[in-house]
Amino acid sequence: MKRIGIALFLLSSFCYAQSPDGFVPASTNVWGAAYPRVDASGKAQFRIKAPDATTVKLNFWSNPKMDMVKQPDGFWTATTPPLVPGLHYYTLIIDGVEVSDPGSHSYFGGGKDASAIEVPEAGSTYYLPQDVPHGAVREIWYNSKVTGTWRHALVYTPPDYDTNKAARYPVLYLQHGGGEDETGWIKQGHANFILDNLIASKASKPMIIVMAYGYAHRLGYVEPDLTGKGFGSPEMMKSLDEMFGAFDEDLTQALIPYVDANFRTIADRDHRAMAGLSMGGMQTFQTTFNHLDTFSYIGGFSGAGGLMAFGGKPFDPKTAYNGALADPDAFAKKVHLVWIGIGTEEPAMMHTGIVNFHDSLTKANVKHVFYESPGTSHEWQTWRRDLKDFAPRLFQ
Amino acid sequence: MKRIGIALFLLSSFCYAQSPDGFVPASTNVWGAAYPRVDASGKAQFRIKAPDATTVKLNFWSNPKMDMVKQPDGFWTATTPPLVPGLHYYTLIIDGVEVSDPGSHSYFGGGKDASAIEVPEAGSTYYLPQDVPHGAVREIWYNSKVTGTWRHALVYTPPDYDTNKAARYPVLYLQHGGGEDETGWIKQGHANFILDNLIASKASKPMIIVMAYGYAHRLGYVEPDLTGKGFGSPEMMKSLDEMFGAFDEDLTQALIPYVDANFRTIADRDHRAMAGLSMGGMQTFQTTFNHLDTFSYIGGFSGAGGLMAFGGKPFDPKTAYNGALADPDAFAKKVHLVWIGIGTEEPAMMHTGIVNFHDSLTKANVKHVFYESPGTSHEWQTWRRDLKDFAPRLFQ
Repeated sequence: MKRIGIALFLLSSFCYAQSPDGFVPASTNVWGAAYPRVDASGKAQFRIKAPDATTVKLNFWSNPKMDMVKQPDGFWTATTPPLVPGLHYYTLIIDGVEVSDPGSHSYFGGGKDASAIEVPEAGSTYYLPQDVPHGAVREIWYNSKVTGTWRHALVYTPPDYDTNKAARYPVLYLQHGGGEDETGWIKQGHANFILDNLIASKASKPMIIVMAYGYAHRLGYVEPDLTGKGFGSPEMMKSLDEMFGAFDEDLTQALIPYVDANFRTIADRDHRAMAGLSMGGMQTFQTTFNHLDTFSYIGGFSGAGGLMAFGGKPFDPKTAYNGALADPDAFAKKVHLVWIGIGTEEPAMMHTGIVNFHDSLTKANVKHVFYESPGTSHEWQTWRRDLKDFAPRLFQ
Repeated sequence: MKRIGIALFLLSSFCYAQSPDGFVPASTNVWGAAYPRVDASGKAQFRIKAPDATTVKLNFWSNPKMDMVKQPDGFWTATTPPLVPGLHYYTLIIDGVEVSDPGSHSYFGGGKDASAIEVPEAGSTYYLPQDVPHGAVREIWYNSKVTGTWRHALVYTPPDYDTNKAARYPVLYLQHGGGEDETGWIKQGHANFILDNLIASKASKPMIIVMAYGYAHRLGYVEPDLTGKGFGSPEMMKSLDEMFGAFDEDLTQALIPYVDANFRTIADRDHRAMAGLSMGGMQTFQTTFNHLDTFSYIGGFSGAGGLMAFGGKPFDPKTAYNGALADPDAFAKKVHLVWIGIGTEEPAMMHTGIVNFHDSLTKANVKHVFYESPGTSHEWQTWRRDLKDFAPRLFQ
């Protein structure tokens, strides 16, 4: 009986007591779930019932990775050391199968609905809802002639959008990372709250933010069988190139015209920015440099350059992006901002790649902003900080 | 290296070939997942890699429940008989632990992010995106003095909302079921597409739809320890009563004033409706009958009455809802629509409960519409059909 199911759901939601040891349920939990939970030092505790399992592992995608311990009551538990603040993706590995934690809401990452836990950052309110005017986030659907499909995007409109009815606004296109989707910047990143707070303090101009779905195939495209083709193989690079190209066309030929037709935008390059994280950063550089008639503000968050963005060859400012950077003076007149960020604790290969890109731009006299997020890895706390630094520099 | 992780994700997304046996990946899958998949007869196939697992079960919340079979390559597979069309929640049970299928997007149900598979209904397009003008779905956040928290809701605005700037619109408050949340009517139900299509064909008046989060505790409320208190126990009923009451107050004292202040509504009872499914139907009847100064259209989808709605006592139209129905003539003058629906294949206790409620209303001369969805159970296809029948009757 589903009605009884409802009651059991409610019952199970409520049968935990206040914790005397300072742990509280994570803000990322589903209604009523007592675990996972965090304390003020950033320690996190996990608990799942699996009486028949042989092994249960706690699998943070950054760190830590820990064996959970079976208790006499059939629950498996683990307590982490203090974690870096921010949102951390994780999964549980039960007898070798990687699954989500039923106690956590799911967040699309790694190509699936994964679990994540929010570890509060003491004193940081910039990405949390405050008592300031709030913008709205709109789900939109547009029929793309490029892909031949209905596509879904999210659009943040600033707090005064519905009341200040004559106003028109600049637009930031803001992309998720590989394995994530268009929901990431709201659910994981809190981009809406970050902008609400920046706009309320007058640090940022009011702007529209469009978050597109970063995967696309052109209508009629059939993906070849890539079984056994490794990363970096010609077949794989060709597949990625096709996808990046299809995304570029969908964005510039379908989504931007849709947004300009359906929202009160200022539809010119001086009032259009693009940024993205990781894969979205690579897409941003490819798309903006190929369409400098469309964009004039550019941001790469932990994903600006690197080998993958240049077809396996080192970055060469003279030839990269069809020579868009070859004349730094002309480029500086045309492009109002190039912004590059990286977390200090990101994996060495990524950190080095971005630092090298930054150095190459410096040597080539390409004016840009370089930002390092202290203590954070290839995770959302880095990208929240990136957006907080990046957004106030737009449209000023 | 996360960049390599991205590549692996993309690779794994693309390495399936076209299926020669008529199965296609379900529309509810994550990008690139080849399984689960469905064929034209409604059969569904499932596949998960779990080489170390001892048992893997496929667990549809309605039916079927099947043992999956281990293949020599470490994958477990299952093929269902033809399924009823619509969206079906399911989970996998791996060595006794109920988890989501990584190939499926997650849908909030049963108090967790669960898997679901969409089985197409031949010839039915009313809940799919069509080439008609589309409304938007907005995420809003409001600061509730009732709960003392920020609360999230979704708001559908009709296609002409942003262009027809002088127009004001009636509002339908539309609630999810127990264990679901405010995202259900969009993600599972496609309420936005249903209304887009109904408005395009002029079957429905353009309207705003507000989808609230159906759980609430009053500020300062502390839930007692309900361990061992069964469904129907005084403690449990008290807890539910508190939650329903807090929701009622949040809706009428916080959310409705917020919506009327921030959207171009027609803010009177003649232009305000409420409906809900399952638990949301019970909340609808409680809230609307207690606030007939606020609502004049009422819908209960698979959850209108039943013992739970009347504190364990049989429904008595003379006394129920503080006597709101005691004078059917006065009630009919005040209330424009009472609408009750149920699926023919819902569990007998639920079906009987709703039919009895319908009979009681008929005997008491309370005018109402009764609708039975043929062949469907306590699932979203029933509620999509309910909305399709209900919405055209509003605000005419």
